[in-house]
Amino acid sequence: MTKKELIECHSRVKPYIHNTPVLTSRLINKRIGADVFFKCENFQKAGAYKIRGATNAIMQLTDTQKQNGVVTHSSGNFAQALSLAARSLNVNAYIIMPSNSPQVKKNAVLEYGGEVIECEPTIDARQKTADDIANKTGAKFIHPSNNPKVILGQGTAGLELLLEQPNLDYIFCPIGGGGLIAGTALASTYFSNKCKVIGGEPYEADDAYRSLISGKIETNVTANTIADGLRTQLGSYNFPIIQEYVTRIIRVTENEIIQAMQFIWERMKIIIEPSSAVAFAALEKEKESFKNQSIGVIISGGNVDVNQLPF
Amino acid sequence: MTKKELIECHSRVKPYIHNTPVLTSRLINKRIGADVFFKCENFQKAGAYKIRGATNAIMQLTDTQKQNGVVTHSSGNFAQALSLAARSLNVNAYIIMPSNSPQVKKNAVLEYGGEVIECEPTIDARQKTADDIANKTGAKFIHPSNNPKVILGQGTAGLELLLEQPNLDYIFCPIGGGGLIAGTALASTYFSNKCKVIGGEPYEADDAYRSLISGKIETNVTANTIADGLRTQLGSYNFPIIQEYVTRIIRVTENEIIQAMQFIWERMKIIIEPSSAVAFAALEKEKESFKNQSIGVIISGGNVDVNQLPF
Repeated sequence: MTKKELIECHSRVKPYIHNTPVLTSRLINKRIGADVFFKCENFQKAGAYKIRGATNAIMQLTDTQKQNGVVTHSSGNFAQALSLAARSLNVNAYIIMPSNSPQVKKNAVLEYGGEVIECEPTIDARQKTADDIANKTGAKFIHPSNNPKVILGQGTAGLELLLEQPNLDYIFCPIGGGGLIAGTALASTYFSNKCKVIGGEPYEADDAYRSLISGKIETNVTANTIADGLRTQLGSYNFPIIQEYVTRIIRVTENEIIQAMQFIWERMKIIIEPSSAVAFAALEKEKESFKNQSIGVIISGGNVDVNQLPF
Repeated sequence: MTKKELIECHSRVKPYIHNTPVLTSRLINKRIGADVFFKCENFQKAGAYKIRGATNAIMQLTDTQKQNGVVTHSSGNFAQALSLAARSLNVNAYIIMPSNSPQVKKNAVLEYGGEVIECEPTIDARQKTADDIANKTGAKFIHPSNNPKVILGQGTAGLELLLEQPNLDYIFCPIGGGGLIAGTALASTYFSNKCKVIGGEPYEADDAYRSLISGKIETNVTANTIADGLRTQLGSYNFPIIQEYVTRIIRVTENEIIQAMQFIWERMKIIIEPSSAVAFAALEKEKESFKNQSIGVIISGGNVDVNQLPF
């Protein structure tokens, strides 16, 4: 995953994604005591940054592979992103979803042209079902985060942010599987000589935080966080990149996540999902350490069920 | 209120307001069957277009008048806007609010530096209290909508929209007191040779709709609409402008307002208040009449209590 590969990846996916806006708020700058630049992937196609990695992964398949389609397991943003990216590229997408996924999430996948395949709600069942579909259809399995092409694709958000704001001192990112932060860390390493990348992670799913301390990939026994996008397991491709290039991980409580989310909604008038609020909550929690700095925050997505809000 | 005066007004207020972004959504264009351009005054200072008229009105006071301050009655967006505009211009603002206004609204005014004066929750009491304050302090009364300088200021939103999208066929606007739509209609008349202005109004507060039919200002006996910004009475300065320059008013039900609001939240990931949703609801209701047209929609504000949502 070289600088050249990241640049090529960006050229490749650019026609299929939005270069999302970077928003600022004087009120928030005042509150944090720093200049904060929000890279708004909530305005991205399918409502989250995930379309970047999904598009990059599909575009690099051979023609034969494309004919056979792609398969993933996700009940979240990657399911929608892969479905939409596949449709844009005339490829079939098979999405393995736990049978207990909310109908609204299944509908979103269907709306974007994905084919939903249900499985038992266990980690083993979803991988086995994905393998079965891959064997049966020849579809290529694309992991939502633990895949170098996906990581590179997700890095294009940070790349665009740094092209627009080259003087950033820090970029804050949420950590779930680690695809977004690993890609962001690569972008920051290649496109800035000073910008440090900091992760935000819920206490309730702090596998990455604990992994950095122990030096090996830790798992979450439970992941009882409102930040549903961050419940997933840190991946083996992502972890070494995070170890090498991510400066620090700041953990936040559920209450801090909810408050940060409400604050952004009320003050910036934009809808962000709880996972996105984690990055801002991390910054806010430790704002004294970042006074007068220039800080990017990646708002990873805006897919929220507005009928079920935590406030 | 000539073209020259509108241009001068825009130059005057420009340093004190945001030139808010114009957003589009392919999904919404597809749903409506037209090109829709949302002028996002929800991203305006104090969360609504009202700061435009408030700023213009204060800036045209004499120095002596400025020393004595300004007074208005409002429990909504104009209260916050006048407070903030006054603070930016080093003027005192006295805001008359009904004693039963939610504390959150009083706090918002206080936060922007306004002085809250409570009155009995009747129309007579609020005007009398405003008159008392004006007599006591010498403060100049500025009506939230029925004031030529306020109308002209509100017109700068439509002016900016037309400068960015000069080929609009229509602009949709909510109607409450009529300041925004009257200003927009003037902007459209002066800066386009084809753009028509259409109002959206709740059935539950359709005084403007009925006034256009009867040819005289009608009143709302009740105004039981979720679109709290539109409960106010159509004004005497605004009505003749609306009569002359507004093409049509489309009325919408409470359910249509709520659905339009939720749709914009979910699909555009922006927070808009119910009054803003009225304009889009009107467009959606009659979309068959606007196929393939180029349509501006003024999103008037984003001040919503996220703890009390209708969905």
